[in-house]
Amino acid sequence: MDKVRIGIVGIGNMGTGHAKYLIEGQVKGAELAAVSDVRPERLQQAREEWGDRVKTFASAEEMFGSGEVDGVLLCTPHYEHPQQAIAAFAAGLHVLVEKPAGVYTRQVREMNDAAAASGKVYGIMYNQRSNPIYSKLRELIASGELGEVRRTNWIITNWYRSQAYYNSGGWRATWAGEGGGVLINQDPHQLDLWQWTTGLMPTRIRAFCQFGKHRDIEVENDVTAYVEYENGATGVFVTSTYECPGTNRYEISGDRGKIVIEDDKITFWRLRELESEFNANNEEAFKQPEVWKFDVPVASGGAQHLEITQDWTNAILKGTPLLAPGEDGIKGLTLSNAMLLSTWTDAWVDLPIDEDLFYEKLQERIEQAAKAKKAE
Amino acid sequence: MDKVRIGIVGIGNMGTGHAKYLIEGQVKGAELAAVSDVRPERLQQAREEWGDRVKTFASAEEMFGSGEVDGVLLCTPHYEHPQQAIAAFAAGLHVLVEKPAGVYTRQVREMNDAAAASGKVYGIMYNQRSNPIYSKLRELIASGELGEVRRTNWIITNWYRSQAYYNSGGWRATWAGEGGGVLINQDPHQLDLWQWTTGLMPTRIRAFCQFGKHRDIEVENDVTAYVEYENGATGVFVTSTYECPGTNRYEISGDRGKIVIEDDKITFWRLRELESEFNANNEEAFKQPEVWKFDVPVASGGAQHLEITQDWTNAILKGTPLLAPGEDGIKGLTLSNAMLLSTWTDAWVDLPIDEDLFYEKLQERIEQAAKAKKAE
Repeated sequence: MDKVRIGIVGIGNMGTGHAKYLIEGQVKGAELAAVSDVRPERLQQAREEWGDRVKTFASAEEMFGSGEVDGVLLCTPHYEHPQQAIAAFAAGLHVLVEKPAGVYTRQVREMNDAAAASGKVYGIMYNQRSNPIYSKLRELIASGELGEVRRTNWIITNWYRSQAYYNSGGWRATWAGEGGGVLINQDPHQLDLWQWTTGLMPTRIRAFCQFGKHRDIEVENDVTAYVEYENGATGVFVTSTYECPGTNRYEISGDRGKIVIEDDKITFWRLRELESEFNANNEEAFKQPEVWKFDVPVASGGAQHLEITQDWTNAILKGTPLLAPGEDGIKGLTLSNAMLLSTWTDAWVDLPIDEDLFYEKLQERIEQAAKAKKAE
Repeated sequence: MDKVRIGIVGIGNMGTGHAKYLIEGQVKGAELAAVSDVRPERLQQAREEWGDRVKTFASAEEMFGSGEVDGVLLCTPHYEHPQQAIAAFAAGLHVLVEKPAGVYTRQVREMNDAAAASGKVYGIMYNQRSNPIYSKLRELIASGELGEVRRTNWIITNWYRSQAYYNSGGWRATWAGEGGGVLINQDPHQLDLWQWTTGLMPTRIRAFCQFGKHRDIEVENDVTAYVEYENGATGVFVTSTYECPGTNRYEISGDRGKIVIEDDKITFWRLRELESEFNANNEEAFKQPEVWKFDVPVASGGAQHLEITQDWTNAILKGTPLLAPGEDGIKGLTLSNAMLLSTWTDAWVDLPIDEDLFYEKLQERIEQAAKAKKAE
């Protein structure tokens, strides 16, 4: 294969964005070969814009079986990702799935299993992994510059969404339509980066979600989560959609100082020696380790979605490792599911979570919402 | 009375600091008339330094009954504050107590009751209330400039304490000696300011304390607390003593924007209209309220301890209202007790807390520590 023929499933906002750079030939070794959508007007639009150059299909399954594509990019509603990916793998196709991987980890685990069995290239659109700020942070931590991580603290409250946003689609912010609120719709990148940059997944979580706060919606739009890691470190994640202006501040403290990412920059307060070593040797009651504060240089660029699609294409053509393997999608989703589950059970949630219990509790919310709608 | 004759109980670090500015005549209308200490060498030192000018007493009770003082400043270990204050009120004296007010709220409540019954002037050394940054914040919130408070978030991890500090006194960081760790020893100011600046006490708390983390001590030195307020707002308080360099960042978001106090400055992101009003009228899915960001001018100065002692002296001489009434000491202590209790019971703590349960759990820690020491 010298060119990957890509098919896009779902040409809404995200799908159209991917189509644009593919049509412009911005991804080397890839071409947009086909699109599918269940909405006839979208296909009509596609034909008007691209003519015969791009095939159109009225369903994903038709496209998967057409022989016209080598890999597919899934840009459908969250709930549909796993079943479509599984069908695509069964048809022998490579898959790049939009985030979130799915709504509940049980279905995502099935998708991961299907991917592994297929041997196909399986990526996830975690485009923020291409952001040089976060890859630099990951490199700083992995290389030991920060020492062992002792605390993480992410305040990510700048996902402002007004009631008008929520009213702009009937499926929005509903359990049946999206399966959650800020955690599943706005935070997937942060929930991925939080563990990807540190290399740490929590061992247990206690979280506090509030639902429909300052907004007329069913789902959570205010979350505070406390986590504990295996190495004894702790962490906090605070997110909301009604604060204006919100904050995006990610602090990680370690044995060799502190790093803060805020306003698109990395500030490092670095100790001359490890705190643990200073503490073991120091004999003066009020002495502190020497600190050097500086801005960490960060490469410009980071081609975001385009970079992830290029990376996935390269993996198909050349067998290079993926920046964002599809299997990783379950990690951020596990955090998101655990935060809801902790709130619903008003208790600690140990990881890995009880996937069946989460699924059951989610179904309860969907049923309650349907009943409430009927009663209106 | 045209001059308040002040007696200081306990001339250790804090007591000596207060004595210094009093001896220098920096507090108008007050004079240092006497000191008491159970350590003969401290009294000896006092006599050498001040001669006959300042009377010395070998116990607080002797000084209280001597007729030589009109008011006393209590600078003894935390546990002793309430019983000494109660004795002072019984002797007809005014009282200014160092923070924390005490170790557990039950004894502080008794102190408050004794104060109320005595009709004497009762203050607490919350000197950070004289810090113009915090009084300005309080004024901004009270006057409605920030709108209704929606979230508070204080990261106060810059109380670095090495093992050498903890080793510098055998009573330090023990349940028997100090009754707690970072919450009772380092954070009393922040726990006071957190509710004083916002005018909000939580209705319930879920907290996670870790004990002896990266240090060989009995008590908590790592705390994450989540709180909920009556108006629906939520809050987070994160504190530790082993992070270096730590953070002191206090964020409050409200219906009209966000205020952050960090690096001794107040930054205000202020909305042109209330978010709630914008949200009610806006019809565009991705529109946000207009924000103006600026630094809030803050008066210089704030005479800290001196200012609180002056304020208390004025209240005695002129009947002016106190900046830091003694009764307020129970508020921050309630937060601190609640955080420990939530950890010990691994459950929510509703406010007001179960004072007897806290006392019982504290005694358990004291007994366990004594047993562990015996076994060594």
